[in-house]
Amino acid sequence: MARVYNFSAGPAMLPEAVLAQARDEMLDWRGSGMCVAEMSHRGKEFMSIAAEAEADLRELLAIPANYKVLFLQGGASLQFAMIPMNLLRGAEGADYINTGSWSKKAIAEARHYGTVNVAATTESSKFTRAPAQDELNLSADAAYVHYTPNETIEGVEFPYVPETGDKPLVADMSSTILSRPIDVSKFGLIYAGAQKNIGPAGLTIVIVREDLIGQPINGTPTMLDYKIHADNDSMYNTPPTYAWYLAGLVFKWLKDMGGLAAMADVNARKARKLYDVIDASSFYANPVAPTDRSWMNVPFTLANAELDEVFLKEAKAAGLTTLKGHRSVGGMRASIYNAMPEAGVDALVAFMQEFERRNG
Amino acid sequence: MARVYNFSAGPAMLPEAVLAQARDEMLDWRGSGMCVAEMSHRGKEFMSIAAEAEADLRELLAIPANYKVLFLQGGASLQFAMIPMNLLRGAEGADYINTGSWSKKAIAEARHYGTVNVAATTESSKFTRAPAQDELNLSADAAYVHYTPNETIEGVEFPYVPETGDKPLVADMSSTILSRPIDVSKFGLIYAGAQKNIGPAGLTIVIVREDLIGQPINGTPTMLDYKIHADNDSMYNTPPTYAWYLAGLVFKWLKDMGGLAAMADVNARKARKLYDVIDASSFYANPVAPTDRSWMNVPFTLANAELDEVFLKEAKAAGLTTLKGHRSVGGMRASIYNAMPEAGVDALVAFMQEFERRNG
Repeated sequence: MARVYNFSAGPAMLPEAVLAQARDEMLDWRGSGMCVAEMSHRGKEFMSIAAEAEADLRELLAIPANYKVLFLQGGASLQFAMIPMNLLRGAEGADYINTGSWSKKAIAEARHYGTVNVAATTESSKFTRAPAQDELNLSADAAYVHYTPNETIEGVEFPYVPETGDKPLVADMSSTILSRPIDVSKFGLIYAGAQKNIGPAGLTIVIVREDLIGQPINGTPTMLDYKIHADNDSMYNTPPTYAWYLAGLVFKWLKDMGGLAAMADVNARKARKLYDVIDASSFYANPVAPTDRSWMNVPFTLANAELDEVFLKEAKAAGLTTLKGHRSVGGMRASIYNAMPEAGVDALVAFMQEFERRNG
Repeated sequence: MARVYNFSAGPAMLPEAVLAQARDEMLDWRGSGMCVAEMSHRGKEFMSIAAEAEADLRELLAIPANYKVLFLQGGASLQFAMIPMNLLRGAEGADYINTGSWSKKAIAEARHYGTVNVAATTESSKFTRAPAQDELNLSADAAYVHYTPNETIEGVEFPYVPETGDKPLVADMSSTILSRPIDVSKFGLIYAGAQKNIGPAGLTIVIVREDLIGQPINGTPTMLDYKIHADNDSMYNTPPTYAWYLAGLVFKWLKDMGGLAAMADVNARKARKLYDVIDASSFYANPVAPTDRSWMNVPFTLANAELDEVFLKEAKAAGLTTLKGHRSVGGMRASIYNAMPEAGVDALVAFMQEFERRNG
């Protein structure tokens, strides 16, 4: 079968050029006689792959020198524990902004380690908007402020970076990292599971200001101590080497595409095309406040939910897969990360218009 | 370059047939139009891959129905914390057998969560043997007994499974799992980082008797609670899908090879060839008690350590790579896991004999 346009929220599409290169290097990485997955993580071949990936990520995001970049395991779900364990640093608790499903999970886990002040919540509006800066009730004694810049399930994205004064800002960027340039210096810690916009599942990237780490709470497992990983260049134990390599190929591809400013242009255009077709129709709907709509995850419903199954079936037959929305919100969701070609969005738009014409 | 014989202790060689299949399926897994790394872990394609891998592993190891098989992240190093956090179940501590570098790491981490009774240690003999059953001083109130059946660095392997009465036996099988049949029912919990004998780094397999889980200590992160993963078929969060898929291909390959009884024959023969050439010579030496020598990791020294660099350089030129021993024991180490073809061992033996003739 031909390659499909896969709108999965994650794991998600990878650039075809990356997959082709990985395929060609599978049995012999550049004359080494080995697949990257077979290499000792302490050998010079993998050490060069690892270092180059980090250097490329630092270049793409313009990461300042006083930030460590960690290549870890466990996904955002493990970060939900690691963040309070490492960043509370003697404080009673932290501020969390609640904007949807992933915020709630982060909050629930943080409560095992300290008090959580919910600095704002949009639950009463069914998580269809981001709170404004002046809605944030930040507490004086919070160790940090946590938020989810992009909610993968609800399709809500902050159009601004919250101002938190001298409190470190912690961001779950799993579904938005690398979609556009950001100012890393505004953040204390950025984390992201790789499986949406970086590479394969099983790799988690953490970018952390180095003065924030080194004071984990009692009982923190060695493997959950950021300082241990920082001091060992993410090789305290065997890292997920093959995923690290694939992520490095994605970083090279992003550089080839022109970097994050160029990706931002494409991503804004892809999202606009989808929201335009939704807004122009009474057949499709998206409930999110227009200013706060996600570039990466576009949930939408059909006016007649009885058509959902037909829509999904016909879309799949047209090579447009994994469009079913999360069960908590229903309908459809098109996740359109960096690796989704603009042609894939064009194909979806054409399919949606044609489907509406036949069924609307 | 041609494929090399890579004697790395881990990450280590993968079967060439597995790599070739992964290469061929990289852009399109069986007509799905997707790489496995791009698939939603909740989709029917990946669910079938995951289930088949588990079924094959259960068949290979004859895992009883009252054991859960978990596909996790974090490596053995994270298990060093998860085991006491989950298995102490109100007890003060546990028994640990100290047979080398990895035992010591497991002990150090367990001490964060309870008392450790070192039931036996072979440190005074520089970890060159396994303790006998009658040397084990098991304590009456231990929650479990932990040991390392194969010490990857020292090349020491238990020739027997310790009897621990009604105490659950916990085994770090990272470097021995799948090398031969075992009786899983003798164990409470078996764990293994994948990167030696299962698949790529970033996947950790845990096989646990289901009555032992569900009572984690306070403060255990959700992601470190075995019960959470067991209840969610290892999909509480996004698992390392591509690594899981590659492990599944390795399991199929093992079945094609005739299963673990057949692998045991090959592995015993590969190890004997290497130990024979070492023992027949005064040029090479291995310090481990003959009954306790590892089938998987064969450390050896040259009589004249000044020849080490020449040995490594000439071996590499002959396509025999990553033979340098761990810095803590020096010399050489040939790791010869399942995926190392017997022809690779034959080539190493021939090289060693020739090198001795020229330099002995």
